Amino acid sequence: MTYCVAIKLEEGLVFASDSRTNAGVDQVSTYSKMHTFETEGERLFLVLTAGNLATTQAIVNRLKREMEEGVEGSFADVGHMSEAAEYLGRVNREEQDKHSEALSKSGIAAEATLIVGGQISGQEPEIYRVYPQGNYITTSQHTPFLQIGESKYGKPILDRIITPETELGDAARCALVSIDSTIRSNLTVGPPIEVFVYETGSFAFEHYLCLEADNDYLRALTAAWDENIRKAFLELPRFDWESTRNRKRRGTSFHTRAHHKVHTSSR
Amino acid sequence: MTYCVAIKLEEGLVFASDSRTNAGVDQVSTYSKMHTFETEGERLFLVLTAGNLATTQAIVNRLKREMEEGVEGSFADVGHMSEAAEYLGRVNREEQDKHSEALSKSGIAAEATLIVGGQISGQEPEIYRVYPQGNYITTSQHTPFLQIGESKYGKPILDRIITPETELGDAARCALVSIDSTIRSNLTVGPPIEVFVYETGSFAFEHYLCLEADNDYLRALTAAWDENIRKAFLELPRFDWESTRNRKRRGTSFHTRAHHKVHTSSR
Repeated sequence: MTYCVAIKLEEGLVFASDSRTNAGVDQVSTYSKMHTFETEGERLFLVLTAGNLATTQAIVNRLKREMEEGVEGSFADVGHMSEAAEYLGRVNREEQDKHSEALSKSGIAAEATLIVGGQISGQEPEIYRVYPQGNYITTSQHTPFLQIGESKYGKPILDRIITPETELGDAARCALVSIDSTIRSNLTVGPPIEVFVYETGSFAFEHYLCLEADNDYLRALTAAWDENIRKAFLELPRFDWESTRNRKRRGTSFHTRAHHKVHTSSR
Repeated sequence: MTYCVAIKLEEGLVFASDSRTNAGVDQVSTYSKMHTFETEGERLFLVLTAGNLATTQAIVNRLKREMEEGVEGSFADVGHMSEAAEYLGRVNREEQDKHSEALSKSGIAAEATLIVGGQISGQEPEIYRVYPQGNYITTSQHTPFLQIGESKYGKPILDRIITPETELGDAARCALVSIDSTIRSNLTVGPPIEVFVYETGSFAFEHYLCLEADNDYLRALTAAWDENIRKAFLELPRFDWESTRNRKRRGTSFHTRAHHKVHTSSR
């Protein structure tokens, strides 16, 4: 599986992805799912990939080749991020179509889901999620992040922390925590974790991290998070019946209303 | 959808469930998914239900009737919790079979997934998850909890906090936090939240809670958790480039290794 997240903030964009791919449990490997494309100082695109590895590799190779060759409608000359999403949707569908029939006979899906984000000079940075069918959606003021892959485990912390006003560093940290929680709960998501922070208008790939499992910062971050979460949990208000004074009368204060369930008896 | 969790601890058992059911987005209603059965002081069973509502209602009615009638192999006389799971699996399959053919024609699944837990006098408390096919699994020292329904959002906090040594109060609180996180991230899971805490050997339905959305304790708990999580997050180690001293040199310390991505250019 895979877990990738992209966040749109007032300060810029944050992208993060895991690097584990698996075809069944006995074929697990490591591939980067973060791919970058730029025309120095003029346009910058970052693509996150999930789904069939052969499809995503074919897509990325084609994106790169067509940009190098300056193909019309490719990353080389699209005028808007939405056009980049449209282009990516078309490439996604076309690459799937090449093998989907043969694959479906083997019960394998050719589908890929992608996130594309970045900035074209003179315009605002944007991120889009591109579906296997080729259609796409972007963010809103109330939905500032997009996920692909195994996204449920890591969503609650993003829901609690991320707003458009969140600082780039906090958002990057939140993405790391979101991926770490997913890695702990789901074997199909694994390190290294890649993070890319884009500052609006910089048109540069400056703030990039690739964190192996033994990376010092990642270790410090996950250890601190684990400890802080426990602390946060232990500081929660307790049930009355837990206080040692009431321990003898356990349960008495626990009722908020009569136990309304059906009690049956075989006697 | 639904989210239910059951936890097996050295002190006893904890069960928690949401109460939202939906057939599509325009048919959302509230039903308890927690059903209890007992023979005073001798045997006690609690069943959590997920899946097709008609199926789960039929199952629960039959469990109740057969226990009242003292049917052989029912909750009235099963000798072990594993037999209770076996019985529940059989009832589950039989109730699905009644309508599955007609339902499948309408593209509706008759499937139900259940958790059964409790204690039979002279034996240890146990919990089992019963699949739509009728088979079942129980917990282990390293997997002390079982979930059914929309279980991914709420799993990370359980993974971090719950061990067999966890106290009943902490486990009940963790289950509430797990369900609250799920409710925030997924509309198909909703209050009231029911919690039942069973102390080994008590054979009593003492510690039961049904928390409506406006319940004082639930409000205090979720508000405290939200605040504590933010605090826990803000106290995490920051990237070097975030410190005001380094703000000018942003990114410099952010690199842990060279940015190894392919940069293409249309020039």
